[in-house]
Amino acid sequence: MEVTAHHTRTVAGWAAMNESGKVEPFIFQRRENGVDDVTIKVLYCGMCHSDLNFLKNDWGITIYPVVPGHEVTGVVTEVGASVSGFKVGDRVAVGCIVEACFDCDRCHLSEENYCEKLALTYNGILSDGSVTYGGYSETLVVHHKFVARVPDSLPLDAAAPLLCAGITVFSPMKQHGMLRSGGSLGVVGLGGLGHIAVKFGKAFGLRVTVISSSPAKEKQAREGLKADDFIVSTDQEQMQAKRRSLDYIIDTVPAKHSLGPLLELLKIKGVLALVAAPDQPLELPSFPLLFGRRTVSGSIAGSMKETQEMLDLCGEHNITCDIELVSTDGINEALARLARNDVRYRFVIDIGGGSN
Amino acid sequence: MEVTAHHTRTVAGWAAMNESGKVEPFIFQRRENGVDDVTIKVLYCGMCHSDLNFLKNDWGITIYPVVPGHEVTGVVTEVGASVSGFKVGDRVAVGCIVEACFDCDRCHLSEENYCEKLALTYNGILSDGSVTYGGYSETLVVHHKFVARVPDSLPLDAAAPLLCAGITVFSPMKQHGMLRSGGSLGVVGLGGLGHIAVKFGKAFGLRVTVISSSPAKEKQAREGLKADDFIVSTDQEQMQAKRRSLDYIIDTVPAKHSLGPLLELLKIKGVLALVAAPDQPLELPSFPLLFGRRTVSGSIAGSMKETQEMLDLCGEHNITCDIELVSTDGINEALARLARNDVRYRFVIDIGGGSN
Repeated sequence: MEVTAHHTRTVAGWAAMNESGKVEPFIFQRRENGVDDVTIKVLYCGMCHSDLNFLKNDWGITIYPVVPGHEVTGVVTEVGASVSGFKVGDRVAVGCIVEACFDCDRCHLSEENYCEKLALTYNGILSDGSVTYGGYSETLVVHHKFVARVPDSLPLDAAAPLLCAGITVFSPMKQHGMLRSGGSLGVVGLGGLGHIAVKFGKAFGLRVTVISSSPAKEKQAREGLKADDFIVSTDQEQMQAKRRSLDYIIDTVPAKHSLGPLLELLKIKGVLALVAAPDQPLELPSFPLLFGRRTVSGSIAGSMKETQEMLDLCGEHNITCDIELVSTDGINEALARLARNDVRYRFVIDIGGGSN
Repeated sequence: MEVTAHHTRTVAGWAAMNESGKVEPFIFQRRENGVDDVTIKVLYCGMCHSDLNFLKNDWGITIYPVVPGHEVTGVVTEVGASVSGFKVGDRVAVGCIVEACFDCDRCHLSEENYCEKLALTYNGILSDGSVTYGGYSETLVVHHKFVARVPDSLPLDAAAPLLCAGITVFSPMKQHGMLRSGGSLGVVGLGGLGHIAVKFGKAFGLRVTVISSSPAKEKQAREGLKADDFIVSTDQEQMQAKRRSLDYIIDTVPAKHSLGPLLELLKIKGVLALVAAPDQPLELPSFPLLFGRRTVSGSIAGSMKETQEMLDLCGEHNITCDIELVSTDGINEALARLARNDVRYRFVIDIGGGSN
């Protein structure tokens, strides 16, 4: 593209060229490090379920070739002249967003993840007209405002998924007052987002119930993640017995479903925070919403301010994700397993090959 | 029924005996006035759309014969020995609920409209096991805690629909901070609930936009109700032009629809308050909820505390409903017109025959 003619730094990465759902090695150009930029040697990149959606063009918005990846950790190798917050060698992370206008109401409120001019970390369009390439690559060049610090106590591999899975559940937890102990939280779906929501809930002192259609997950939920309770969502008797028992629900299920049975689990004035993006509309029956004065609320990722707050809290509480590390040769196999939900709970690509 | 054997006061009313959707004169028994009760000579009763749903058993929960009516105004004719707040001759009103436990968390919070043991004003079950009969009748006997005072400045006929239509939109307006000026409110649907939401919005200093599928309603909305703006919901161009423009939406449409296009009208963090009860689930697409950090919230009627606050505010601001008064002979004709939405904006039955 003409607009990227001034991008002169050659980078190796992995891209999907079409809707096959597979990636292949891909050499492309990034911009040189600008005065406001930080260059990062990528060491690890988490594999988010939305990577699959973009690879396969499920939402009809993919720009090929697409280099996925928005759960990135690594070390700083270069900083621009105007950047004071980072130095070479710093352990850093990049999430879902790499540009915003910093001039709108949202940006002024430090809610740049709702800026109308934001650019996503991959498959986004920067203000210079170029398409963004994500973290399935050896090097990132990012405006310093979209770089977070990773606390020393957190390993860079198991911290990577915090940048999307983590912040996506943390932001509504903060918004709805779940960061203090005493409440009861239901987590629907025990995947990448769900498992970290359980960890956050336990760390913040909530009573955590996992709600899953899969009875086989009870052992992992209770033993592996220390969940206090488990409900099989297809078991009417169990669902009925837990009616009006929860203050909050975080719904992570990225498939069409009815919110009715979940709303019935909430106490009066309870809140269901939706963080998944099914491509079909959810069903919302009015009665459980009305008769329980309940709320369904949505949010997308989180701001950089929230992201740093989350990472710092994870550092304090030693919270990381449960991951399966895959080599760059194994990305396609991992993608195939991800499509079958065969992962506990997040694949992380070892981009640096253990070089950190 | 055995359980009503002790109900010895004979009352004349109008009941549906089956799913025909029509009522007929009906003589039945109510309890005598107890120590905590107030007896009311019913003068006016509004006709709520849910009366039709109950008459026709749309929700499958109707107990025949059903005497509808939960928008009641009248005068006190008798008070129990333990009742200090009312005296004979007082102008009073009764809404959707006539009993609650007063011993649960909700009741302690003055949110008895969410008490699990509440009894609806009609088609409800009282703690003595009897079925409740509503305001399509000449006399009501009600626990004094479910009786509100009607300010002297309000006419009893045009005030009657405030007891359901009014409180149903007032409660979420209070909950979500719409009682102060400066915000922008969208009202979806211009029927009984919608028209009073517009009046409340204007009285509280909000900028009010009516959103309707019917272009013919623009004149009534702007001229009759002083709405600031009007959007035809089926006009994509108009909907697109008003994207992210509203702080709040009150959705009064009692039919299945998608919340997606409405959510797009909300600013970031905007709130859609659902007050209608379609019998089919609403469609809730995730993207407009997530990307706008928006909220969909439900509520049912309001508490007695909120009801009295609303009536007092209506007294101050001279807010009443726009009604068509019908005689007791005309109830069935009015029901037929209500089924066609042919009413501007609420039928009120002149139960007392102008005797007040």
